[in-house]
Amino acid sequence: MPEFNQPLGGNEMPRFAGHASMFRLPTQVGALGLDVALVGVPLDIGTSNRTGSRFGPRQIRSESVMVRPYGMATRAAPFDSFQVGDIGDVPINTFSLEKSIEIIEHFYDEVLAAGAKTVSIGGDHTITLPILRALHKVHGPVALVHVDAHADVNDQMFGESITHGTIFRRAIEEGLVDPAKMTQIGLRATGYAADDFDWAKGRGVQVVTAEQCWYQSLAPLMSAVRERIGTDTPVYLSFDIDGLDPSVAPGTGTPEPGGLTTPQGLEIIRGLWGLNVIGADLVEVSPPYDTTGNTSLLAANLIFETLCSLPGCKRRD
Amino acid sequence: MPEFNQPLGGNEMPRFAGHASMFRLPTQVGALGLDVALVGVPLDIGTSNRTGSRFGPRQIRSESVMVRPYGMATRAAPFDSFQVGDIGDVPINTFSLEKSIEIIEHFYDEVLAAGAKTVSIGGDHTITLPILRALHKVHGPVALVHVDAHADVNDQMFGESITHGTIFRRAIEEGLVDPAKMTQIGLRATGYAADDFDWAKGRGVQVVTAEQCWYQSLAPLMSAVRERIGTDTPVYLSFDIDGLDPSVAPGTGTPEPGGLTTPQGLEIIRGLWGLNVIGADLVEVSPPYDTTGNTSLLAANLIFETLCSLPGCKRRD
Amino acid sequence: MPEFNQPLGGNEMPRFAGHASMFRLPTQVGALGLDVALVGVPLDIGTSNRTGSRFGPRQIRSESVMVRPYGMATRAAPFDSFQVGDIGDVPINTFSLEKSIEIIEHFYDEVLAAGAKTVSIGGDHTITLPILRALHKVHGPVALVHVDAHADVNDQMFGESITHGTIFRRAIEEGLVDPAKMTQIGLRATGYAADDFDWAKGRGVQVVTAEQCWYQSLAPLMSAVRERIGTDTPVYLSFDIDGLDPSVAPGTGTPEPGGLTTPQGLEIIRGLWGLNVIGADLVEVSPPYDTTGNTSLLAANLIFETLCSLPGCKRRD
Amino acid sequence: MPEFNQPLGGNEMPRFAGHASMFRLPTQVGALGLDVALVGVPLDIGTSNRTGSRFGPRQIRSESVMVRPYGMATRAAPFDSFQVGDIGDVPINTFSLEKSIEIIEHFYDEVLAAGAKTVSIGGDHTITLPILRALHKVHGPVALVHVDAHADVNDQMFGESITHGTIFRRAIEEGLVDPAKMTQIGLRATGYAADDFDWAKGRGVQVVTAEQCWYQSLAPLMSAVRERIGTDTPVYLSFDIDGLDPSVAPGTGTPEPGGLTTPQGLEIIRGLWGLNVIGADLVEVSPPYDTTGNTSLLAANLIFETLCSLPGCKRRD
Amino acid sequence: MPEFNQPLGGNEMPRFAGHASMFRLPTQVGALGLDVALVGVPLDIGTSNRTGSRFGPRQIRSESVMVRPYGMATRAAPFDSFQVGDIGDVPINTFSLEKSIEIIEHFYDEVLAAGAKTVSIGGDHTITLPILRALHKVHGPVALVHVDAHADVNDQMFGESITHGTIFRRAIEEGLVDPAKMTQIGLRATGYAADDFDWAKGRGVQVVTAEQCWYQSLAPLMSAVRERIGTDTPVYLSFDIDGLDPSVAPGTGTPEPGGLTTPQGLEIIRGLWGLNVIGADLVEVSPPYDTTGNTSLLAANLIFETLCSLPGCKRRD
Amino acid sequence: MPEFNQPLGGNEMPRFAGHASMFRLPTQVGALGLDVALVGVPLDIGTSNRTGSRFGPRQIRSESVMVRPYGMATRAAPFDSFQVGDIGDVPINTFSLEKSIEIIEHFYDEVLAAGAKTVSIGGDHTITLPILRALHKVHGPVALVHVDAHADVNDQMFGESITHGTIFRRAIEEGLVDPAKMTQIGLRATGYAADDFDWAKGRGVQVVTAEQCWYQSLAPLMSAVRERIGTDTPVYLSFDIDGLDPSVAPGTGTPEPGGLTTPQGLEIIRGLWGLNVIGADLVEVSPPYDTTGNTSLLAANLIFETLCSLPGCKRRD
Repeated sequence: MPEFNQPLGGNEMPRFAGHASMFRLPTQVGALGLDVALVGVPLDIGTSNRTGSRFGPRQIRSESVMVRPYGMATRAAPFDSFQVGDIGDVPINTFSLEKSIEIIEHFYDEVLAAGAKTVSIGGDHTITLPILRALHKVHGPVALVHVDAHADVNDQMFGESITHGTIFRRAIEEGLVDPAKMTQIGLRATGYAADDFDWAKGRGVQVVTAEQCWYQSLAPLMSAVRERIGTDTPVYLSFDIDGLDPSVAPGTGTPEPGGLTTPQGLEIIRGLWGLNVIGADLVEVSPPYDTTGNTSLLAANLIFETLCSLPGCKRRD
Repeated sequence: MPEFNQPLGGNEMPRFAGHASMFRLPTQVGALGLDVALVGVPLDIGTSNRTGSRFGPRQIRSESVMVRPYGMATRAAPFDSFQVGDIGDVPINTFSLEKSIEIIEHFYDEVLAAGAKTVSIGGDHTITLPILRALHKVHGPVALVHVDAHADVNDQMFGESITHGTIFRRAIEEGLVDPAKMTQIGLRATGYAADDFDWAKGRGVQVVTAEQCWYQSLAPLMSAVRERIGTDTPVYLSFDIDGLDPSVAPGTGTPEPGGLTTPQGLEIIRGLWGLNVIGADLVEVSPPYDTTGNTSLLAANLIFETLCSLPGCKRRD
Repeated sequence: MPEFNQPLGGNEMPRFAGHASMFRLPTQVGALGLDVALVGVPLDIGTSNRTGSRFGPRQIRSESVMVRPYGMATRAAPFDSFQVGDIGDVPINTFSLEKSIEIIEHFYDEVLAAGAKTVSIGGDHTITLPILRALHKVHGPVALVHVDAHADVNDQMFGESITHGTIFRRAIEEGLVDPAKMTQIGLRATGYAADDFDWAKGRGVQVVTAEQCWYQSLAPLMSAVRERIGTDTPVYLSFDIDGLDPSVAPGTGTPEPGGLTTPQGLEIIRGLWGLNVIGADLVEVSPPYDTTGNTSLLAANLIFETLCSLPGCKRRD
Repeated sequence: MPEFNQPLGGNEMPRFAGHASMFRLPTQVGALGLDVALVGVPLDIGTSNRTGSRFGPRQIRSESVMVRPYGMATRAAPFDSFQVGDIGDVPINTFSLEKSIEIIEHFYDEVLAAGAKTVSIGGDHTITLPILRALHKVHGPVALVHVDAHADVNDQMFGESITHGTIFRRAIEEGLVDPAKMTQIGLRATGYAADDFDWAKGRGVQVVTAEQCWYQSLAPLMSAVRERIGTDTPVYLSFDIDGLDPSVAPGTGTPEPGGLTTPQGLEIIRGLWGLNVIGADLVEVSPPYDTTGNTSLLAANLIFETLCSLPGCKRRD
Repeated sequence: MPEFNQPLGGNEMPRFAGHASMFRLPTQVGALGLDVALVGVPLDIGTSNRTGSRFGPRQIRSESVMVRPYGMATRAAPFDSFQVGDIGDVPINTFSLEKSIEIIEHFYDEVLAAGAKTVSIGGDHTITLPILRALHKVHGPVALVHVDAHADVNDQMFGESITHGTIFRRAIEEGLVDPAKMTQIGLRATGYAADDFDWAKGRGVQVVTAEQCWYQSLAPLMSAVRERIGTDTPVYLSFDIDGLDPSVAPGTGTPEPGGLTTPQGLEIIRGLWGLNVIGADLVEVSPPYDTTGNTSLLAANLIFETLCSLPGCKRRD
Repeated sequence: MPEFNQPLGGNEMPRFAGHASMFRLPTQVGALGLDVALVGVPLDIGTSNRTGSRFGPRQIRSESVMVRPYGMATRAAPFDSFQVGDIGDVPINTFSLEKSIEIIEHFYDEVLAAGAKTVSIGGDHTITLPILRALHKVHGPVALVHVDAHADVNDQMFGESITHGTIFRRAIEEGLVDPAKMTQIGLRATGYAADDFDWAKGRGVQVVTAEQCWYQSLAPLMSAVRERIGTDTPVYLSFDIDGLDPSVAPGTGTPEPGGLTTPQGLEIIRGLWGLNVIGADLVEVSPPYDTTGNTSLLAANLIFETLCSLPGCKRRD
């Protein structure tokens, strides 16, 4: 008799059948009683090129039905460790980016007030700013592990100060993130200026380009990241699927060649184990460009691995 | 304050967001308290050519989010008329057609015992046989309106007596359907024998080929069908999406050129108004071949129109 | 030696080659010297369901390379009749619907000031409102022929008064359109309320549902429309591709089954011949859902036919 | 015990299994002993826009597995009437259009010398010219029923006199076809000159535009065509799939909106019954643009219907 | 004059043309006279999630036309070494998994009786059990190299003991495979229990997870595998395409992120050289999810490499 | 105030909007005044298997809109260094490979006469031969870095001496390339003969197979290549996208498994820095097989990196 919510098993209902909640977990309205709330944020109007990530939460849930409850490599058992539930989507206002930013922040205020951690399913990367704003009220400045092809530290885009390409500039300026405990991994390709990646560096952010990752395990990097952050500091993980190479994650809005491999992505998330992870998001999956569903499936697995790295997750001997 | 379950409105949650239940209606376990139960039957191992209809219920639900609560042409208001709910999928055994047939029949026995009508979302056409078996225990032989490219009256396929191509032979033999009140619409293309369509005719079934429908409204046909069946006889609608032309319904397993148009499909369903419709299914949508989602969207609309034709559905002046 | 801009011929450069301007016409900045300016408006953040129409102008231009310079049925020769040019896209602010509405209006003010008519390539239907506002300053209230699956007369969507589903309510309220000379063709499917189509009717708009069009030529309808509008009244054509059936135009954001056929769409545009057409748009093509390019190709042809129906277009004997 | 080659039945081998010969018929090298030879001509370098029809024969064969041996509407039984076989593809030289034209002609010389009729699977429309040249040596000038969106009577394309857009000009000039017994059906859309369709008319060809076909059965037209041609004249059918509307045949290289419906296409082929059909082709299916396989499936059905219209095909009472 | 069957050359018939037999080899009924029989097994009803692998044999054959007769890295010349032929597909009963298992076993009994080795083209992984049963009668227990994302050692799925996820439990229990000479490579992701991979380990199976393979050549592993098995032991290769990463093999039914690379897959097969390989299969390619055909092309290459690793294959200096 | 042509910025016009010239640079007719001319060569009739690369230039331009003006890893600033312009496509004769070869050569003669370097966008690999012929007149024999899955040194294909598989045999025979300064990287898979790769080796060409590249950085290789070629020798880069693995570049005509990774591709191009690169091409992208656009996007990035490696490109400290 399980203590916590359990995913609907493949022997009770075929995986292609039944309601497609995240990991086939029970759904509920609001986060009351949950240790971890899975939240969809179907916003894509902060996007500068291809849209479609508004369908990210639905499609990632649909593909998450293949994820089983135990991590084979980590031997982690998140659903034996936490009460996890799927609390649905934030009712964003799809006609106004400005209003949606506020709606998201208030939604997270309530979830956090209920005592749950959030693991969020985007949506475009703009969603991370209001989430960090809500987290800041509870945790103060957080450490940040940021996987991405892009630094997202533009000052403005088309005159706007909040878009999917400016959020970490805002987050640092607003003191939501401690740049001395921020690491960006996977940055690459082309920029608006040769110093695009330098603004963050100048504030103490550790920038690890994709080139620095090629051909090798990121376990050593993550060891250094853990040391840099320390075990008590609250840490947030923001994982833009375009940090990974387009070959493994084609279904995204602003793909850039030469990115991280899936093993590297997994090592980053698994490498958070031992840190005080207080929240996470997985963003920028765009289903119209995910012709096989495999980008969404990868995203679902990365979210599962994130659950496995939350502090307190049991690991079987 | 609505009396009945209402679809989640587009102004409460964007249509691309939230859990994708059928028509965004509340979900429940079992049919208790429902007038109409929407049921998915994700079976596709009764299929002789392309598979994939196991994903039909999930994909049709996903696209059904676009369907709004009122029919504009009929002015019908099903959600002001009935308690309608989405009771999820039948937990078929995907490795055994034989066992699945039994599982489906028992599932429907229970739903019918709860007093609900069923409108079913396939799955391949094999599902109709166990549904008819369950209905027979309650209603005796039923009248049948059957939209399809194929007669589905083969005696056997590959030596098997129950497949998606034999079910109406079985249904007539078992007395589940009254052939004198059965009409098949849309039959066409090629057959195993020149008399493929004649077996049913010989038992009194009215066969209306696609050719007989070309270039014209089916309102007159449906008027004759209504007269043939009579207003009291319990009627079942079995709508194989391949009755429609592949241009409007490409996402199906055994498409045949030269089929019915969407207006004709709508006229058939709308033409049931006035009859004692006691159940219905929509089958053979195969999402892997529905590259735009539009076949599933069409299916969702046809299911909505079916609700509008159920006896007692209110129609606004 | 041609008097006017001529499309680059298929014997000078293969159709799959060369820059993909609209109809392979010369491009220019601004509308100076043009009789007709082809304008792209790549806005899709006014959309309530599927996005992607931001790529409409680019994709329609890419497919327009197949359109040759003469209409075979009408024998019309637009490029022998007018100076037509492709003046590129309006630089909308993709992060703000409100600002984009203003940018579009100002852009059209300038084009109209240069003396050119506009034929616009969307983008979602929201673009029509600022275009009508600009036209109103020049022409006063205009007659409107509106092809669509939806009435687009909602008062608000998610609390917003300007979205792709509210524009014609605004246009009538603001006096941009004369409802007594407005005809909506192709409306159908489901609505938020059973009287969704009635608001416009109450203001004198002629509503022609898809059902009223099934199985027949629309030439008689267009004859009546011409009579209703009269030959001098300035007329605007707003053609939402989803007025046509999803089988012919799958690549759109909110498809609805049972729509107009391509012949009917062509008859509507050809039926404008003889009226004082002062502008037009073709909206809601969403390339991510146009898996073959054929929706964009259809759109390009409809835009060509619109050129052929502009007053003064020469027709060869 | 069948007298003639029979298609491999669905009860002997599932339709998705086994070698994908045309209609699952036996294959053979050369046409010896055959009444009707099915021949693939995988040429696509005569194409002016989208390529890909080189894969037409393979894909049409793959989808032809769904076609069963009897025509339900015509009650025709071609495989009880003729010895039909699949003799594979013409080994064209894919690097040289000129040499391929010669290779094709010689291939057909040999097939005709073996006493077989040919029903050909394209490939682009260029293939029809060498086929007609070979036929001319046996039959003299033939009557022609030509279904197409385009007249294919350009004098030259890019300076070349033989391409997929010039072949019927050449065929008439070379005396291969009797223009007084030639009918073109489905012509439409845009042209290089307003008189594009007039060259053929001036030589006595009957031109039936798509517009003349809208909203009606083509049975009356075919009755007139049969009368015009007469029962003894050798007739060739050249069916370009783009004669049909892109909604039913999206997978083609130069689609044009507003084309024939599938029922009209079937009526044309069925309307040949009673004529002395001595050969036929089905061309311009381009599998890379046939995302569901349904264009190829339609083509396979049209080829089957062509067999049913060959003189001597038995029809069951 | 070649001693053995030769693939049809690209200079005799373009690669896109001609019948698509495996590697363009001659086809024959039955295995008589063959050293190696290529066999398709188009079964997909043993699948627990996405179907479609029933089309695997046909699609892999279609893409195999690109494979030329010599391995450039190995300098192997299989068609100079063996008589290889394509003997078509097993006529499975697509409506019954149980009966299909028997049909497959009997089919292989006959092929083995004819003296041929089999290299099989799936189909889902269930097919390997009846193949191993047939092999066991000839060879006794075999060594097994098993490439897969999943262990396939579940006891039951949905109450069934034979499905694509239980076969190696059955094979070990039935003594078909010697677990002490069995190696599983590529296992990863999530499981039903944290000890999912441990059942096999407990019986002596060597389990090499994907994580153990990341970032390195598998040549050393294969050297160890060869030593473990020994040169005389009969070895079977069962290669589930999902052992490879979804980026290289998207077209499969139960993809799992973080899998083997193509070089690793090639090294595994090439690393069998020197062993007594007595049969092999390549399973779980699902064409509906193989949107470019490249998964099938990869599968065809892996099958070619398997031929190159059969004992006795000549290698040019 | 920029000295040179600048790409249209994302803050002036959204990336999805505006004319899709290469890198959003200004277009011009002819190369006058340019240091570097970007040229499309939309030829695909030299292709032996899948066609479609005729759409390569258009699609690569469309995706190039995402490329920003600075290389982040190299800190290179090509648009601060050179006058670069997009001069459109060569007007090839799509019906004649022979004539197209001549047209291409003459086109390049003129561009070179204008003093511009060319970076070319294919089109199939056949285009490289006439480009090398034109270059030879200016530079004499050139060094060649050739990335490809195939050696392209066949003597003939189907009897033709110039196709996409024979060009480097011709180039060496004609003295256009100095084989002692030619390196082929990425060769692999299967061949017509076991010595397919040996012809080039025998003439002094350095052949680096894909297998020799697996699991490692190519920086050391490129160091050796630079040494071999020397800093003054004019070098041409011919980059066939199929040199890369199909997982990163699925959209190509003759994919081969086991190819180079994107990092390796980038290292090759970046490794040219310091050499006297006098021209380059990127060939064999086939958009119909590039279902997400990501192959074209990768190609655009590789072309950008090529600009960054041209001698004289400024690099920011």
